Amino acid sequence: MKEYIIRDPWKIIENDFNPAYHEISESLFSIGNGRFGQRANFEEKYSGETLQGSYVAGVYYPDKTRVGWWKNGYPEYFAKVLNSVNWIGIDVELDTIPLDLNTWKVHEFNRTLDMKTGLLSRSFKASNSANTVVKVKSERFCSMADQNIAAIKYSITLEKESAVLNIRPYLDGKVVNKDSNYDEIFWEEQDQNIEERRGYVQTKTKKTGFVVHAAMNCDIAINGSAVEEPTFQYESSMYVGSSVDLNLEEGDTVTVTKYVSVLSSRNYETSQLIEVGYTKVDEAKTKGYDALREAHENHWGHIWSTSDIIIEGDIAAQQGIRFNIFQLNQTYTGDDERLNIGPKGFTGEKYGGSTYWDTEAYCLPFYLATADPHVSKNLLVYRYKHLGKAIENAEKLGFRNGAALYPMVTMNGEECHNEWEITFEEIHRNGAIAFAIYDYVRYTGDRSYLEEYGIEVLVGISRFWAQRFHLSERRQQYVMHGVTGPNEYENNVNNNWYTSRIALWTLEYTMSAINELKEKSPDLFAQKEDKLKFHYYTETNHWKDILSRTYLPEDEELGIFLQQEGYLDKEQLMADEIPNSEVPIWQHWSWDRILRSCFIKQADVLQGIYLLDDLYEDEVVKRNFEYYEPRTVHESSLSPCVHVILAARLNKMEKAYELYLRTSRLDLDDYNNDTEDGLHITSMAGTWMSIVKGFGGMRTVDGKMSFNPKLPEAWDSYSFHVIFRGVTILVHISKQGTQIKNLSDTSVDILIDGQRYSIEPDSMALA
Amino acid sequence: MKEYIIRDPWKIIENDFNPAYHEISESLFSIGNGRFGQRANFEEKYSGETLQGSYVAGVYYPDKTRVGWWKNGYPEYFAKVLNSVNWIGIDVELDTIPLDLNTWKVHEFNRTLDMKTGLLSRSFKASNSANTVVKVKSERFCSMADQNIAAIKYSITLEKESAVLNIRPYLDGKVVNKDSNYDEIFWEEQDQNIEERRGYVQTKTKKTGFVVHAAMNCDIAINGSAVEEPTFQYESSMYVGSSVDLNLEEGDTVTVTKYVSVLSSRNYETSQLIEVGYTKVDEAKTKGYDALREAHENHWGHIWSTSDIIIEGDIAAQQGIRFNIFQLNQTYTGDDERLNIGPKGFTGEKYGGSTYWDTEAYCLPFYLATADPHVSKNLLVYRYKHLGKAIENAEKLGFRNGAALYPMVTMNGEECHNEWEITFEEIHRNGAIAFAIYDYVRYTGDRSYLEEYGIEVLVGISRFWAQRFHLSERRQQYVMHGVTGPNEYENNVNNNWYTSRIALWTLEYTMSAINELKEKSPDLFAQKEDKLKFHYYTETNHWKDILSRTYLPEDEELGIFLQQEGYLDKEQLMADEIPNSEVPIWQHWSWDRILRSCFIKQADVLQGIYLLDDLYEDEVVKRNFEYYEPRTVHESSLSPCVHVILAARLNKMEKAYELYLRTSRLDLDDYNNDTEDGLHITSMAGTWMSIVKGFGGMRTVDGKMSFNPKLPEAWDSYSFHVIFRGVTILVHISKQGTQIKNLSDTSVDILIDGQRYSIEPDSMALA
Repeated sequence: MKEYIIRDPWKIIENDFNPAYHEISESLFSIGNGRFGQRANFEEKYSGETLQGSYVAGVYYPDKTRVGWWKNGYPEYFAKVLNSVNWIGIDVELDTIPLDLNTWKVHEFNRTLDMKTGLLSRSFKASNSANTVVKVKSERFCSMADQNIAAIKYSITLEKESAVLNIRPYLDGKVVNKDSNYDEIFWEEQDQNIEERRGYVQTKTKKTGFVVHAAMNCDIAINGSAVEEPTFQYESSMYVGSSVDLNLEEGDTVTVTKYVSVLSSRNYETSQLIEVGYTKVDEAKTKGYDALREAHENHWGHIWSTSDIIIEGDIAAQQGIRFNIFQLNQTYTGDDERLNIGPKGFTGEKYGGSTYWDTEAYCLPFYLATADPHVSKNLLVYRYKHLGKAIENAEKLGFRNGAALYPMVTMNGEECHNEWEITFEEIHRNGAIAFAIYDYVRYTGDRSYLEEYGIEVLVGISRFWAQRFHLSERRQQYVMHGVTGPNEYENNVNNNWYTSRIALWTLEYTMSAINELKEKSPDLFAQKEDKLKFHYYTETNHWKDILSRTYLPEDEELGIFLQQEGYLDKEQLMADEIPNSEVPIWQHWSWDRILRSCFIKQADVLQGIYLLDDLYEDEVVKRNFEYYEPRTVHESSLSPCVHVILAARLNKMEKAYELYLRTSRLDLDDYNNDTEDGLHITSMAGTWMSIVKGFGGMRTVDGKMSFNPKLPEAWDSYSFHVIFRGVTILVHISKQGTQIKNLSDTSVDILIDGQRYSIEPDSMALA
Repeated sequence: MKEYIIRDPWKIIENDFNPAYHEISESLFSIGNGRFGQRANFEEKYSGETLQGSYVAGVYYPDKTRVGWWKNGYPEYFAKVLNSVNWIGIDVELDTIPLDLNTWKVHEFNRTLDMKTGLLSRSFKASNSANTVVKVKSERFCSMADQNIAAIKYSITLEKESAVLNIRPYLDGKVVNKDSNYDEIFWEEQDQNIEERRGYVQTKTKKTGFVVHAAMNCDIAINGSAVEEPTFQYESSMYVGSSVDLNLEEGDTVTVTKYVSVLSSRNYETSQLIEVGYTKVDEAKTKGYDALREAHENHWGHIWSTSDIIIEGDIAAQQGIRFNIFQLNQTYTGDDERLNIGPKGFTGEKYGGSTYWDTEAYCLPFYLATADPHVSKNLLVYRYKHLGKAIENAEKLGFRNGAALYPMVTMNGEECHNEWEITFEEIHRNGAIAFAIYDYVRYTGDRSYLEEYGIEVLVGISRFWAQRFHLSERRQQYVMHGVTGPNEYENNVNNNWYTSRIALWTLEYTMSAINELKEKSPDLFAQKEDKLKFHYYTETNHWKDILSRTYLPEDEELGIFLQQEGYLDKEQLMADEIPNSEVPIWQHWSWDRILRSCFIKQADVLQGIYLLDDLYEDEVVKRNFEYYEPRTVHESSLSPCVHVILAARLNKMEKAYELYLRTSRLDLDDYNNDTEDGLHITSMAGTWMSIVKGFGGMRTVDGKMSFNPKLPEAWDSYSFHVIFRGVTILVHISKQGTQIKNLSDTSVDILIDGQRYSIEPDSMALA
């Protein structure tokens, strides 16, 4: 745990330059706009430890799989998020000595990410061994207003009698991935050009053939006036740069304004890229830096107006929640249904792939409540488009008849992961994908996705479950063998309660959706029946048989669901009995010891109770929570938020608040000692849920928004917006009570602690 | 399955050159002498597909581990068997065209391995596009009489009017391993020298620093007379060669005799290697090829005199069993207790490491019955010397108090393997190592190893078992969670019957060994108690508690032991129901499907019944055999032999014979389609056991040799030697009955079908 970030309600601030924390800061201060993003690498050269990272949404590379021991069924490749063209680069030399904070002495340093406006700025004063002293200010943003462009303003002031400054903005496509399995370069040259201060680099990924085009157009001014000195152009494979030499005197300030466009063949015809790129940077230059920035800031203002959460009385909690919301909005804007939410977003390479079950289980509720419904729908459509691949994937594993198994990790619908106990066995992901359809319908009231697309996904998944269960002749019950639940500290177990439970839930929901379709839209039903070769009676009868006699492990004595068959045979210890020196256990214990232990990495039975919370009475929730919480080590970023929500439901506010802190400042305080690899983007949605679904107790009940507000003792108040079926409401919870304001122009019915309130436009309910 | 090898009782013969089978033949025709060995690569250049392989016993390289997803506890490296200096090389050019069977036309071809004499020979006639025709004969051996030397006789006859022959014997240390994880070269240059036709190459392994020294001294003769033409010497890094140009006329025959010495720093001081190497090759040259060969052949004669098995009436079976015995004797001679029996011996790189549990479970019985007891004892001493490392290994996994876990794969006692479900969980290997001590004592009657060393190994292993079981509070029974049994088609199961059973057996045997020592040699006991910090009462009471209440899964209804808890919940199918197109399942099914299936890779419950066979009545054996055999797919080379032994015991001779064929010609007929990687050396001992322990029904009963002979219908007779407590007996089993001859000078008591026979020296018992 590190606490070097200055606490501030709206800003992330670092006031000292500590090279040991530089890579952590590169992650924390990352900026992006849903289309592309960039770690907080320095513009000028930096020869110290750094993870260079510039990412373009949807552009990936199928890196040849690396395993120790091959298992039949493993995918041939792992799709890597690609470090692509470096568009921030500005090389600076003073009297031929490169400016480099690794070799210069740093006197003042500030790095600030203003989350309100989406601006990354930096200022420092540094000197070198030739007694050259400079002050540098830089600011940059990836425009939210026009997702094709970015801009950088970089100025340098001389604090020495005189010096020759060489300054060279450049674009560099010759970049590598740190996590390349076989040290392969993933890019090949396509084209580059430089003319005065305008140029481009166009590179292409090997194998996948994605083309990325970065263009720049730069202004260079001295003390506010454009410089007139001649430029020198540099062009080599995948690189262009444009430099100028300037004789500076003390106090002179040179400012480079770099207008950048980052495009890809995912959004434009390759043949158009050069033209579009130049048009974009020329237009940007004409508008000017300030106008671009204003449009960008306005866009952020709009986002915050509905997605902000305000916490009074707890600045650390306030900064934490805003950081989470900010990063989520930078990562995914929801207007491209081919995209999804990578575990590291645009902040690092680790984990590859863009899509995990995190999207459905953690991110969807956030976007449902804070964005237009088309955003959530696009996340569902993404999976619909991958249904064919999911069926192929299941076929590879021996399933038939249109059974679908969605991949654990994917870019294009194909499985990328290669650990048998996860790839083949952590199949509960299929349940989360089915549940997301239900969650969408329940929240939005919109059945169109379900009827047009979702039904096909549900049938594919239900067919998979029906084949994955098998009848134990001995027991005369269905069982599900060889699975890994959400708690990955158990592998290849039989009858994991969560997986079997969510599977049964899927069968039930699919049947009810089918029956409703059959009744209400017989034509559409007939069409689907035909398309899916769905044998209504045979298949649903089989499903009913499974529903009527499947073994779900429970313990009557304790009154709890069992994580898996035989869980009680384990040595029963409490997480707080583990010596501090052995925590986290994944870094200290061998894998078999972890597997044999009763310790739980992340919510498993409790994940099921959280998802299906309306099916379980408080008493049941309480018994399970009190049994499993003390055995949970929360060594996954996805774990604490689920426990917060259940703890809040059970009025265990101290526990809820303790776990909230753990989730909300996970990256800011580098809790897991891995922020340098990038941020835990998907779990950030869990932090949001901790407040809204946890403390706020938000649920959808019979088509109505419902709240059971609780206030952590440390807070004076908190408030958040929720968008629900076209209505935006503002919820404010304080020691004085709960205020809910209707910000829309239609009235809305809301439940607070079970009591119904009808709120007129611009009015407020008090509870 | 391939059947291109000509059937012959003593020889392995290939009469056509088929490049597609070349790598298979390179494995099959491998030769070695326990100290070093060599695949049947060609002496002259071969540009086609080949696996170059020259191996020196005990010389390995710790290749950096390659895994997809690192698990805590994995070893940093995997010890690779090293392809070392190529000492067979003789480059041949005719009119500057290299002789190369990949580019020349091959007219006649014969490759023969004479198992009786340990000679590899080859002859061929080939022509090239310049109409040059040559006949070549080569013969080579790795001397069993002097394990430091090898010799090659290579002659070439011109069948063309005239041609210039350039012939260059060489030594080449610049070799690579095909299985290098990161394409690393494992060797570095140390020294090389060439003077006329004598030279050496001395190379050193990186990291481990093993030095290998190969020297050569060559004769070159034309039509029987030494050539007088000048030699040209070649020397470069890790390479020396010596060539001569000869103007040949039709019918001229040039013969190169290459005397080679292969030494390593494991057996000599590095500073002595040059001197010893030159002495060896000079002496060899002085003795001459024929004398060296004769000594070598005599040595083989001696080996066969006690280890041969003669089968009459079934040439395929005869060739198969001799091939197995031949390879075992080439691999391990038992006179160096630092060595062990690698899964591929000197025939390939695959699987790395030198030592698996195969040694104790499969190889030990072979060496016990066919070699002097010091050979078996050396195998036990090997493990004793690794006890410290086994304790360290267990500590890494969280065990304490001197608990020992022997590695799954090792070279120097350290674990090399990196699959969690095997490395950490396939712990039954510890049981085989304990059982081997018992087996040795039972067979030889010699308790000295047990008392001096074995007791320490047993205590270490028993301590491991005692910690690896844990008490289930709920059941009030001890259980063993998270194990992989011998059947690797189940991973991470709870209460694998075999593992728990062999663990309990170990505790019992250790206690009885301790108690006997305590009673008979109290001083030695006190010494061990002190050395091991053994708390007699506390520890043995704990062991007794475990013995009194450990859960061993059984099914009363079926009257069988259960492979693991819950096995009966699996879908119960028979192996013969698997479509042929899906066999072997490991090549066709995804890993999870294999794990969920009831199919058994290799004997598991039956392995336990085989080992502890005197504890189980025929009825129990029968019920378990009849239950598990039809579910066993025998996709491990170690499986069929155990089934043969039990089938023979149960008089299921048809099944026994069917499985015998499967094991005995596994490599000769390339049954598993992987002989090109090398031979399955350790399972070859299983083939021997199939005959002696299976058909012959050999057991040790109350310190006496006992037989229950059975004869497969296809055979007229079979006979084998067994060495037992200083007495060599010859067992001959035919349709007429069983003859047992005592070849020694003391009388021996033997049981045949339970009846006791006292056989005087040079006499015979008939039954």
